[in-house]
Order: sequence, then C-alpha cells, then structure tokens
Amino acid sequence: MVLSTVGVIGGGQLARMMIPPAVELGITIKVLEEAPGMSAELAATGVGDYRDLETVIAFAETVDVVTFDHEHVPPAILRELVARGIPVRPGPDALLFAQDKLHMRAKLTELGLPVPDWAAIESADELAEFLETHGGRAVVKTARGGYDGKGVRVVSEPHSVDDWFLALAEDGRGGALLVEELVSFRRELAQLVARRPSGEVSAWPVVETVQRDGVCAEVIAPAPQSAGRIADLAADIATAVATGLGVTGVLAVELFETTDGRLLVNELAMRPHNSGHWSIEGSTTSQFEQHLRAVLDLPLGATGSRDVWSVMVNILGGPADGTLQDRYPAALAAHPMVKIHGYGKEPRPGRKVGHVTASGDDLDEVAYQARSAAAFFEG
Amino acid sequence: MVLSTVGVIGGGQLARMMIPPAVELGITIKVLEEAPGMSAELAATGVGDYRDLETVIAFAETVDVVTFDHEHVPPAILRELVARGIPVRPGPDALLFAQDKLHMRAKLTELGLPVPDWAAIESADELAEFLETHGGRAVVKTARGGYDGKGVRVVSEPHSVDDWFLALAEDGRGGALLVEELVSFRRELAQLVARRPSGEVSAWPVVETVQRDGVCAEVIAPAPQSAGRIADLAADIATAVATGLGVTGVLAVELFETTDGRLLVNELAMRPHNSGHWSIEGSTTSQFEQHLRAVLDLPLGATGSRDVWSVMVNILGGPADGTLQDRYPAALAAHPMVKIHGYGKEPRPGRKVGHVTASGDDLDEVAYQARSAAAFFEG
Repeated sequence: MVLSTVGVIGGGQLARMMIPPAVELGITIKVLEEAPGMSAELAATGVGDYRDLETVIAFAETVDVVTFDHEHVPPAILRELVARGIPVRPGPDALLFAQDKLHMRAKLTELGLPVPDWAAIESADELAEFLETHGGRAVVKTARGGYDGKGVRVVSEPHSVDDWFLALAEDGRGGALLVEELVSFRRELAQLVARRPSGEVSAWPVVETVQRDGVCAEVIAPAPQSAGRIADLAADIATAVATGLGVTGVLAVELFETTDGRLLVNELAMRPHNSGHWSIEGSTTSQFEQHLRAVLDLPLGATGSRDVWSVMVNILGGPADGTLQDRYPAALAAHPMVKIHGYGKEPRPGRKVGHVTASGDDLDEVAYQARSAAAFFEG
Repeated sequence: MVLSTVGVIGGGQLARMMIPPAVELGITIKVLEEAPGMSAELAATGVGDYRDLETVIAFAETVDVVTFDHEHVPPAILRELVARGIPVRPGPDALLFAQDKLHMRAKLTELGLPVPDWAAIESADELAEFLETHGGRAVVKTARGGYDGKGVRVVSEPHSVDDWFLALAEDGRGGALLVEELVSFRRELAQLVARRPSGEVSAWPVVETVQRDGVCAEVIAPAPQSAGRIADLAADIATAVATGLGVTGVLAVELFETTDGRLLVNELAMRPHNSGHWSIEGSTTSQFEQHLRAVLDLPLGATGSRDVWSVMVNILGGPADGTLQDRYPAALAAHPMVKIHGYGKEPRPGRKVGHVTASGDDLDEVAYQARSAAAFFEG
C-alpha cells in the first residue's frame, strides 16, 4: 500500500513548514498541536499533550505514519504506537539517540565516528578529573531536554554544575551529565541527510551555521571553502550516522570543523532543522518535502543547490511593537528577490518567529540581501 | 492598516495552490469551498454556494480582502461586498471583462489593443454576414460561461449556433454571441502579469502554451524564440490590459502569435492561471505568491526565471485505476529532479488532477523529463 497521510506530533514552525510541500505533492498532512493557534494550526486536526498516551494514540489512528515537529515525545508512548502497528518515523530506538546525549555519544563512539573527547559524569569529583586532563576547561551538557543553548555550560570549575547534579538526584531517575572537551573550532557546519525505511540516503550540500548566544542566527549554503574533502567527509559522517542509528526522515548532524581540519560531531536532530531552511528555495528538494517523502518511504528527490549561494537569516524576536506583517510593505519593497517566511507566532525576544532566504551567484550580495531583509523585522 | 487575511471564493486547485505561499509568507488564507472535500479543503473555513449572497457575505466578513479561484461569482454579489466596505480584488468592474467576452472585446478595442476581428451577433443572418466577409469560416463563442474549450465553436455555416441563439432567447436576458475571425496563428502564448491596487504591475516572461482539445496540455517558459520583440510586445499588451481594465491580482492574457508576426489577444483570466503553474518552481515569485501579495497591496516580488527553461505538463484525467499517489513510487524514482503536484482530486477522464514541472538548461531534456514524468499518471 502507498502511504499518503502523514501525522506530525507538535505544532511548531517545523510542522508548519511541512504543510506547503504536502499540499504541493498532493498528500495529506495532519498535526497534533499542543494548544490552539500554534504555528502549524492550519493542518491541526488534534489538540493535546504529546505526553498523554490516549491523546497521541487517538491522533495516530487517523494517519498512515507518525512523525515529529520535535523530539520530546516520551519513548514509552512511541513504543506503544509501534506495538499497535502504527509506523513511527524516526522510530523510538533511533529517536532515543536524539533525546539522550549520553546515549548518542556512546553510540557514535561505538560506530567509530569522530566526536569530541567526552565522559559521563555523576559528581563534581568526576568533573574535576575531566577538567584536569583537558586543559582546565570543558563543556557540560544535560543529557536530556537541552536545545538552542539551553542545558549547556562552559565550565572551568568542578562545582559549576552542582545544581544539575542535584536536580538529577532529586529527579530520582539518577543519571549522569555529559562532559566534553572544549573543541577549538574554526567554524560550525551542519550536514543534513534524509533516509528512507528502505535504506536510501540522500545528502544536501554541507552548510556553515553561525550561532549567536547558542542560537542559530545564519546559514550559508553551501559552506564556503567546503568543496572536496570537507563536503565529502561531512556527507560520509552524516550518512554513517543515519544508517548506523537507523534514522528515518531528515537527520541534521551539527559538526565542528576544528582548527586542525577535522570534523567532529556536535549534536544531532532527527527532524527538519533550522540549518536546512535555505533548502525551501535553495535546493531542488526542500528538507520539508524530503522529510515527507522519507517518512512515507517514497523515493527521495534531488538535493542539489538551485543557486551558487543561498543565505538564510533567522528573524529572532521580531518587532518590539506590532506584528511581522506590519514590516512587510517596507521589507518586500526593498528586497523583491528575497523570500520572507513568517511562522504565525507572536513576536517575543529571542523567539524564532520567521526567517528570510536570499539566493544568487555572489555570496557578498546574497548575504547582504538576506541580512538587510531580516533587519526590517528587528527592533 | 496592513491587510493579512485573504479570503478565496472557490475551493479548486487554484485556491489550493495559494495555500503554500500563504503559509510561507505567514499570512492567513481562508477558502469558501463549494462542497466539502474540495481541492483547497485544508484552508476551507466555509462551505456553500458562491451565488448565494448570505453565504458569501458571511464568509467575506471573516477576511481582510476577497479574491477568487474562478470568475463565476455574480457581479451583484460582488457589488454588495464592495458596498459593505469589503475589498474585492479583482473588483466587480474589472471582473466583468473576464465574465463577459463581448464586454471584454469592446473594451480592448476601445483601448486600441490588438484583437481578432470580431462582432456581436444576434441571429444566423448576422453570422452569415460575418462569414461572408471573413473567408467563410469563423469562431463563435458564448459571451459567458465558457472555459477550457466549452462555449467555443469553429463554424462555416450560418445555422451552426442556432441552439445558442435559442438558449439566449429563452434565457429572457437577451444578449448576443461573439463571433471572431479564425486567426491564422503560428502558436499560442500567454502573458501573465500582476497588478496591485496602488498601480504597480509586474510581468513574468511570456510563455508558450500547447492546447489539446481546447485544454492546456503543456507550457514552455519562456516561450522559445520570444526574446526581444515578442517578449516586450506581450508584456506591453498585458500591462495595458491590466491597467486599462483596472485589474488587481494576477491577470493572464492568452495571445495568438499570428503567422505574420502579430500578437492578438485571445482570452483573459483574472486569477492565477494554468499557464503560470511553472512559476511555482521556475520563477523567484510564483503566480500564487504574487496574487496574494497583489490583492493584499503588498510590494510585488521579482518575476525572473530561476532556470533557463521550465516545462509544465498537466496531468489530465489521471490513473484509470486508483489514485495519483499509487503512481508516486515509480514516478518519483524515475524523476528525482521533477516536481510533481497533485490537487487532491479524484481521477476522471479529462479532469485536471495535477501537473508536473521540470527545469534546467537544455529545453529538449527539460521537456522530456516533464512529459515522461506526467506519463506515469496516465492510463
């Protein structure tokens, strides 16, 4: 049977951006949103808590395959869906690697993939020991629940994360923190791939991501000076991760390009990712269309760039007064070539409320266009 | 005030294809569909007869501006909306030129725009007279209600359209038929433009349309051998029509390129048009995004081609057995570069149920890709 109805758990902008390719491809998309009026409202057929088994099952029974706007659905619920014969993509076993950073680090190490030096630590003493052997500084991350810079601290003092140890102890489930070497990197890259249940994997060009305050601010596609070794290596690593972890759908692998020319895996996301928004206009097949094709086990589309350069700039926060739309007349008039994306979210400091993408032959011009268009939505 | 909610009357595929750009641009789209489950179902907030004043007003009061999937809403209803202060784009006066071919021919003639020789006829005698002065053959069209080859006859005998004269007489409203010279044309072209209420007009490259049995089968963008005089003339004509008729939104002008190198206006459509579907992937701004921008009076986007060539092929009828989706695995596997569009409509002989678009540098290759992909959905 050819599957044709995708159910997305979570009503955020990633679910929203799956709507256009679903409409164009002629497949049905349904969204379980957390509350009324979320970003993906248009396709919402259910409202409720994704941590509630009954809610999720009632929704899942109306679709052919379940996928996600985020990685927070509890594994026990996902396993119950699978037990009931509902395809879940990515599946619970794969998703666990995105939900738990210690689990992910252990698996990537087992697969022989390049990662920063790391350890699981359960006390300030163990952190002290790691600091001692890694130049006195390190990055500590909570294994679960972190994103956009949350749950990440750069530390040089063994007692810097005692509050996290305490929280873990109080949580009762125990568990450890992840500590990693502070990688000396030249820049950050992201490699997106998509993988079908049948095993087909397709990679987009590797991109450069620019973070500000731990949040993605800008993406340049392809990453400058990546042609050849870096591009091949990034694609090979992400393909190995997707295959090794049994991912279905889009997988984003965030990478450090070290000052000595190595690529190390930083983070994973098993869903469309901010670093792939450029692909909506910039690639023959966008990450959102590809994600739908992958979870429906349809043949994947071509992933080449449609322009020499694409630059995506996030709209973070949005206008201090009024809505994004208030700024459209000026922004669209000044930038007829730039594509402006709004997520239907209320402006709020630091919140991702939209993005813009510019494309063309000249990177300086393209970056100027994108940054200048995004600036219309600030302040 | 910046308008941000567009209401579309009619739930067909043109309304459906406005959904993706609305979602991406972050504006709200609502659709009044004729019956449940139509092509634009996802955005439907109302169901009912567009010829019913109450139904249309109830819908229109929930949006900032009203626009259309088709041109069939009765003028009296449109004028009532305007009287109530609801922006209608295109407006009733402009739309009348698309609803009534005699009205359109008279206006284009008044504007000095190139049209085939024509006359309004009310009897077989008048038709006989026209045939006599035009080589014994002519095209007769009903002034209202025709589309996709319906309401059009090539005639050589004065009594060939007596049934139409009879119907007009029985209708009680009287009225005439349009008779036109049979134009000797080399090919058919279509020129799309968009116009804002503020007067800004933007034109896409002129395209070549290939009709089969009076229905658009294929579109080549830009029209081969059109660079220079033909492209400029087509854009000038369509701009003059849009301005002269006060059109807002997308206007499609179907043109004959005559064997002696003139361009003559054949038909008009005041909405996104089949001849512009290529622009979804092929232009920086698609006709559907531009239509939304135009009716919201937002600055228009750039309309250049993103590739040297784009070819759009309609999926007419669709599979004799099963759904479009049944053919996706084979079609997508064979054509990873081609974009396949399904309209969510049941296959039925002759019905437009989808289209495919291919783009690239080599017209032969692009046309092959598009035709071959479309063929997966036949028979």
